[in-house]
Amino acid sequence: MGGVSERADPHTPIRAGIPEHGRVPKYYAVKARVEVLIADLGEGGLLPTERELAADFGVARETVRQALRELLIQGRVRRKGRGTVVAEPKLVQPLSTASYTEGVRQQGRVPGRHLVGLERLHADVALAAELRLEAGAPVWHMERVLLADDERVGLESTYLAVARVPHLERDFAPDASFYAFLRERLGVEPTVVDERIETVLATPREALLIGTPPALPMLLLHRSSSDAEGRPLERVRSLYRGDRFSFTVRLSRP
Amino acid sequence: MGGVSERADPHTPIRAGIPEHGRVPKYYAVKARVEVLIADLGEGGLLPTERELAADFGVARETVRQALRELLIQGRVRRKGRGTVVAEPKLVQPLSTASYTEGVRQQGRVPGRHLVGLERLHADVALAAELRLEAGAPVWHMERVLLADDERVGLESTYLAVARVPHLERDFAPDASFYAFLRERLGVEPTVVDERIETVLATPREALLIGTPPALPMLLLHRSSSDAEGRPLERVRSLYRGDRFSFTVRLSRP
Repeated sequence: MGGVSERADPHTPIRAGIPEHGRVPKYYAVKARVEVLIADLGEGGLLPTERELAADFGVARETVRQALRELLIQGRVRRKGRGTVVAEPKLVQPLSTASYTEGVRQQGRVPGRHLVGLERLHADVALAAELRLEAGAPVWHMERVLLADDERVGLESTYLAVARVPHLERDFAPDASFYAFLRERLGVEPTVVDERIETVLATPREALLIGTPPALPMLLLHRSSSDAEGRPLERVRSLYRGDRFSFTVRLSRP
Repeated sequence: MGGVSERADPHTPIRAGIPEHGRVPKYYAVKARVEVLIADLGEGGLLPTERELAADFGVARETVRQALRELLIQGRVRRKGRGTVVAEPKLVQPLSTASYTEGVRQQGRVPGRHLVGLERLHADVALAAELRLEAGAPVWHMERVLLADDERVGLESTYLAVARVPHLERDFAPDASFYAFLRERLGVEPTVVDERIETVLATPREALLIGTPPALPMLLLHRSSSDAEGRPLERVRSLYRGDRFSFTVRLSRP
């Protein structure tokens, strides 16, 4: 199955998307042509209007619309006022025990957080097991919208035992780095972190809070942290815009 | 913004999706009710038909269809013949220097690979820089469909210098583990791996090869590996079904 072929073209795109058999959907060919435009215009460059593109490419406006919709979802372009511009590349956030705040700063962007809510819950069986608490033990649930350069990019829910930080609501300024707070106030920091990553669609509530279209693929991270003594510290659920974020990690052979 | 509230309900779902303001879309309420069904039925359980669900819930069939479409995309249910069944949980693949094969086996599943193609290319500027070769240097491009328990779950493209393995097409059985081959034949293995993860939609060609619906969010991994001497070894691009895969990694504070 498959043979060895010689390809002498040094400009062959590494990610050739054209099917070798069957039709190329019209919108996909339009996408490819818009990608060339994007490369020429550069970050922030203003695309021609839908009508202009349809005329230039000799296709229906609906075909152009479908192509642009996908490029929007991929984060290659974004809406700006009544026009469409070439988007910035995705943020490349390192996976580490450091916080969201530090990761965004490392990339030369300005991190921010807005508190959605802070509440006390009684830990259900699953959460209690993860935090090594008794079922029903009081836990904090802190929910915050994540920003980068004043743009909403994610939603983060942090769960930890009330016993760890009995007066969180009084002592912590919620737009700051929670990890810095834990370190400075309690001398505690996440030391071992298990992170699980998947892709999901946002719920209507999440889409509303982050301001994303419902069909946008998102990155969902589930984090369980322990402190230097090996005690579970927190469980964090972070949902990021899939068109704005990617994550990176360095792995070494043991 | 936001106050502290007491929530005494230990069964409050951690991921409440209901918006606090505005309408709950009809299909979303149906989704929540189907999720309860899914929990009751368990893995492999057969869901009632669209018509039965519409009658039971007192909604239009199109509303049920929209709910099921999202549950399908999320990997909570899957088609089986003419019916819809509760799907297995996503695979949880560890991010490590080990191969896809080893990761899938660790989870008690049977890994497999089908060769799509093996070709020689001339490295473009970007690829040459990553592999520390001269622009235009000959590289192998090996493309394989990834399987787990005989189900197509991903598509993997591996690029490495022809100089490293001059007779790859002759010496390597492409349905086997490439890392095992490198280790046994050349005494070389990936020692430091940089991995970048993002979410994308599949191109028409990729969707065709993996057998996924076009709107399914996918996980795309970009890997750059070096050997024990610090020489770049390979670049790998792996695309996984977002409804079947998640990735996990353990991080420690330096």
